[in-house]
Amino acid sequence: MSMAEQAARAREASFRLASVPGELKNQALEAIARRLEERTGEVLSENARDLEEARRAGLPQALQKRLALTEEKMGQMAASLREVGRLEDPVGRTLLARELDEGLVLTKVSVPIGVVGIIFEARPEALVQISSLCVKSGNAAILKGGSEAAGSNRILFELIRGSLEGTDKVFKDSLHLAETRADIAEMLKLEGLIDLVIPRGSSRLVKTILENTKIPVLGHAEGICALYVDREADIPMAVELAWDAKCQYPAVCNAIETLLVHREIAPAFLPRLRERLKEVELRGDEATRRIISAREATEADWGSEFGDLILAVRVVEDLERAVEHINTHGSHHTDAIVTRSREAAERFMKGVDSASVMWNCSTRFADGFRYGFGAEVGIATGKIHARGPVGLEGLTSYKYRLAGRGQTVAEYAAGRRRFTHRNLA
Amino acid sequence: MSMAEQAARAREASFRLASVPGELKNQALEAIARRLEERTGEVLSENARDLEEARRAGLPQALQKRLALTEEKMGQMAASLREVGRLEDPVGRTLLARELDEGLVLTKVSVPIGVVGIIFEARPEALVQISSLCVKSGNAAILKGGSEAAGSNRILFELIRGSLEGTDKVFKDSLHLAETRADIAEMLKLEGLIDLVIPRGSSRLVKTILENTKIPVLGHAEGICALYVDREADIPMAVELAWDAKCQYPAVCNAIETLLVHREIAPAFLPRLRERLKEVELRGDEATRRIISAREATEADWGSEFGDLILAVRVVEDLERAVEHINTHGSHHTDAIVTRSREAAERFMKGVDSASVMWNCSTRFADGFRYGFGAEVGIATGKIHARGPVGLEGLTSYKYRLAGRGQTVAEYAAGRRRFTHRNLA
Repeated sequence: MSMAEQAARAREASFRLASVPGELKNQALEAIARRLEERTGEVLSENARDLEEARRAGLPQALQKRLALTEEKMGQMAASLREVGRLEDPVGRTLLARELDEGLVLTKVSVPIGVVGIIFEARPEALVQISSLCVKSGNAAILKGGSEAAGSNRILFELIRGSLEGTDKVFKDSLHLAETRADIAEMLKLEGLIDLVIPRGSSRLVKTILENTKIPVLGHAEGICALYVDREADIPMAVELAWDAKCQYPAVCNAIETLLVHREIAPAFLPRLRERLKEVELRGDEATRRIISAREATEADWGSEFGDLILAVRVVEDLERAVEHINTHGSHHTDAIVTRSREAAERFMKGVDSASVMWNCSTRFADGFRYGFGAEVGIATGKIHARGPVGLEGLTSYKYRLAGRGQTVAEYAAGRRRFTHRNLA
Repeated sequence: MSMAEQAARAREASFRLASVPGELKNQALEAIARRLEERTGEVLSENARDLEEARRAGLPQALQKRLALTEEKMGQMAASLREVGRLEDPVGRTLLARELDEGLVLTKVSVPIGVVGIIFEARPEALVQISSLCVKSGNAAILKGGSEAAGSNRILFELIRGSLEGTDKVFKDSLHLAETRADIAEMLKLEGLIDLVIPRGSSRLVKTILENTKIPVLGHAEGICALYVDREADIPMAVELAWDAKCQYPAVCNAIETLLVHREIAPAFLPRLRERLKEVELRGDEATRRIISAREATEADWGSEFGDLILAVRVVEDLERAVEHINTHGSHHTDAIVTRSREAAERFMKGVDSASVMWNCSTRFADGFRYGFGAEVGIATGKIHARGPVGLEGLTSYKYRLAGRGQTVAEYAAGRRRFTHRNLA
């Protein structure tokens, strides 16, 4: 079946999925969990074949590790399916109820987005997680995984599809698997049939997608996050937050790449930073290098996502310069200030144009699970639709429902009736 | 100044605008209203020159009429500026407050989108209305009006800019006027600097813009709306709603282009429709034409926005076929059902994938003012970001603010601390 045909079927299925009751969606999730438990052996043996192929092709160890499934990982998948089942139904929530006039009631209700295209890399667990989020939110989806995991993805997909169709025929055609690179290219052209594309993977993947589609994209190409140590910072706190935000997991998007420090506190702070972040390569501007030893920072360093134990350090004149630096060089993802001054924190948090702004805590908290969303669809740095860590809500839109008793606009235009616009509880 | 330069200045201004208190924005709106009142004469004389030019160029009468300003229209502009001033500030609203752990508090706060590009046609009032919505929502904007109104737009823009800069220097560079067609082409390429494009005008304008930009677009290219008369419809009500939705203002996007009728009620309903909608050209399918006289409907008629006293009429087998027709041929704008059955209404309103769905009332109610939003930014038929009639909220995004006492992710990863995820009032 061509990608356009699959997308057309997904679109048709999406119309039906919009009416599926929450209970049925949860039954489907439970059915998938059970089937994954029952068929673990088959999945692991398909996965072993992918791994064998990966070894033969000489794929990097890190990639091989992400590709490998285990009994434990399979158990976690089933558990996470049940967790998604327990989350509140994101569809059918009343977002607004308003009487426009007596007997003319407007409600705004959350609905699924429709058809979502999801492109992910390597880890086959992603397929299960993404499918579960789509089932829960009533969306049809076209999934495209990494080619290294083709066999694992295929069996997982078949098990999920079988469980869905076994649960109720309403789920028929709701999920599709794309398998080739050409499929992605075709998918990205289907703006009439696919409502949203979610890339999950390297920033290169995200950039390629952003450049090649007119479909809205939910994601972020870069995580260039900064920590600003204000004049009124608690120095031990600032040092610990810098360590946590840089070293606890340097490869992740909410780790910091840049540290800005107010010139008045720099002489006291920087030596402590140098000592605590021993394993980190610091790249400093001139003012930094007058206080501690560091490699010279280049202009490119301010806009780099190192994803490694490297940190660009700059001394700034004041808070406003820090905000300016972040808005100019950062990626509008997550940025933090350390200060005792509530007033300074307020100026920073208002001025910095990022999805998450932190005061006296680590940038690493910017995450759907830590924010308590239950599930994370992705992190978005655009400002349209969803922003920051995105929960199930990001897979929904809304519709307006107006119920009346035969009212015509003509009566209101002629002034025979008037609107009351009274919000209902 | 080049468009890119203007956009870069708007972007810089947008960082400052995010922190402007509501009161100052309202002062600016009042200052604009006052200046328009004081300088009405100058505006009218610039407008007279545009009109003179339009007459010389032989522009259609309808267009000339839309272009013409009067003392009365100027008064309405000032009044509407003050009305926007009285609306609730859409920025700085707390959308969520959650304790992640003791002393670690997450809030989700509405913020301006940033820089909005607005392209509108003919009526110079649009420039004033759009500017007022941008000021109120803290957005910077680049405005491009129709070339017929160039002189009127320029003087209105200068008066607005003068009032803004006279109110406070924070508003400097917040509004820009683009004047040439080449400017639009350049504007549409600035996806790094412009966050959202709002076209207000013909569906041809909207389509051209959708096809030529990667910037998100808020708008709708077409309004192909339908009224479905169910088996259990109240016939007199259905006839009146059909009249209102078709005839009260046929050129507008929420007027109906299609009427679907259940086969069991068609013989009783269609003759009454024919009688009440005397002035309307009906185009019917075969089943319709067996009951009443009508031109033969072509396949193209089901997907046409006539914008005129023409209505395509089709007899359907049942409600499901009506829903299917609407989802296939409609433009996902606004569709209505007439029925006494709550259950049928529910199936219709869930099944139809449109921004507004109506039960026993006219599609013509789909409008920001009638919905009680105070101001209408536009109507959107996409499902990403805003959908349906869009109020000031559509010009906002949000950011997450996390305030702590030095918490690191490492403590939670090591299990020394646990999240509470408790929502705050």
